[in-house]
Amino acid sequence: MSLRYESQKNITHYMCDRSRSLTLPMLVNLLLEVSEEQSSELSRDESYLKARGVNWIILRYEFSVSRMPDLKETVNIETRASEYNKLFTYREFVVKDSSGKVLLTVDTTFALMDLSTRKMVRLTDEIVSPYQATASRRIRRSEKPKELTDFDDCNQRTFDVRYFDIDGNGHVNNAHYISWLLDSLPSDFLKSHEVSWGVIAFDKEVSEHQSIDSLSMRRKERGTATDHQIKSEAAVHCKASFTWKKLNKEEH
Amino acid sequence: MSLRYESQKNITHYMCDRSRSLTLPMLVNLLLEVSEEQSSELSRDESYLKARGVNWIILRYEFSVSRMPDLKETVNIETRASEYNKLFTYREFVVKDSSGKVLLTVDTTFALMDLSTRKMVRLTDEIVSPYQATASRRIRRSEKPKELTDFDDCNQRTFDVRYFDIDGNGHVNNAHYISWLLDSLPSDFLKSHEVSWGVIAFDKEVSEHQSIDSLSMRRKERGTATDHQIKSEAAVHCKASFTWKKLNKEEH
Repeated sequence: MSLRYESQKNITHYMCDRSRSLTLPMLVNLLLEVSEEQSSELSRDESYLKARGVNWIILRYEFSVSRMPDLKETVNIETRASEYNKLFTYREFVVKDSSGKVLLTVDTTFALMDLSTRKMVRLTDEIVSPYQATASRRIRRSEKPKELTDFDDCNQRTFDVRYFDIDGNGHVNNAHYISWLLDSLPSDFLKSHEVSWGVIAFDKEVSEHQSIDSLSMRRKERGTATDHQIKSEAAVHCKASFTWKKLNKEEH
Repeated sequence: MSLRYESQKNITHYMCDRSRSLTLPMLVNLLLEVSEEQSSELSRDESYLKARGVNWIILRYEFSVSRMPDLKETVNIETRASEYNKLFTYREFVVKDSSGKVLLTVDTTFALMDLSTRKMVRLTDEIVSPYQATASRRIRRSEKPKELTDFDDCNQRTFDVRYFDIDGNGHVNNAHYISWLLDSLPSDFLKSHEVSWGVIAFDKEVSEHQSIDSLSMRRKERGTATDHQIKSEAAVHCKASFTWKKLNKEEH
């Protein structure tokens, strides 16, 4: 059984949206903070990886949200690297409230990127073994974001990469993609809905001085679901699908 | 003597820029987190203010930076509301490293905004007294941002307000203004310089669905200084001036 790590986090103002709930981009920041804490404890932090010319990149998130944490709430974030194969490690996160009730879970897929070639490289035992994850030959086939079906009927918003979007890996940080994805949806929709499930697949890096289009559309079926793409002239960088529930919270 | 409050914060990845230093927008987020902790301790947190139809807004920051905190550093943030008059309270922050060395200081001016009229209102004893700040009739005359002298020669970048820029006060949060201010400067300049001093004066709210221009220019004098404005069609929302020092840190 792989090593479990847990950490408590306080949800403060800057992490929340106008309705005083933790935002999805900040959720991701906090999850990665906790996984980096575990890596530090196991002497496998970012400086260890950089000394070997590599760093973790994230290829996929899958969120299942019962309730997003509220402002001033203290949550417990548990994580473990559950399984790995030659290219990927699968890391799970569970976020609980102070009474131990599960608020949300997030499954992620990590890979190692060579920082000079910008390509994925095989995982090494030296890097992976301290997490005590289960080795497996199997590459998981997990649910993918749905394709956009009607590009003429999309919401579209263009974003220029900003200086502070670029992280220590020299590309736009994951959390900013999530803001772009959500920010193409109408404000009235975002105000009145909360993500209950979502999958985000990252395909290609976005670099400084690039400009991207964030496209989204509401699916024509029962329930409330949206499908998304982040595109540049050169490529599709990211796809995502979300299901939503109506927010009951009073607007402040 | 006014009540001092202190809190330790760990500087994590999402708070840092590509050179692994705390960003100015995240510094401001952390300072306000600490002042809100003090307010909670004194039973004067945001919910107390909202129940009275008001909330704090920040009119001015003045930064003096010896060194910005680094990734993984644990810093001690001290704050106190030093003085108040009928309209303003002056709050000071001191950020120290783990050995007690002062890294930076920030002086701020807070005022109370009526949440329905969106206008400033007089401070009341009930709200202010727990901080034990010194009452004064004097309204401080502090250093102002310099005016832009040549609008034809400015850097200019346009920003559309994003959904997540809006905070619980229903306007763009302060920290986002700071990203806009800095993001108008060329990337090569930001990569190679660090703020050593700065003053930011907030004049008018920016609301959802607005678009603003961030203008900046390098001052034609010895040393490295920049002057800034955030403008919409309707108004000047914010002015700022910064002095900079060359960054010696190796780029990662």
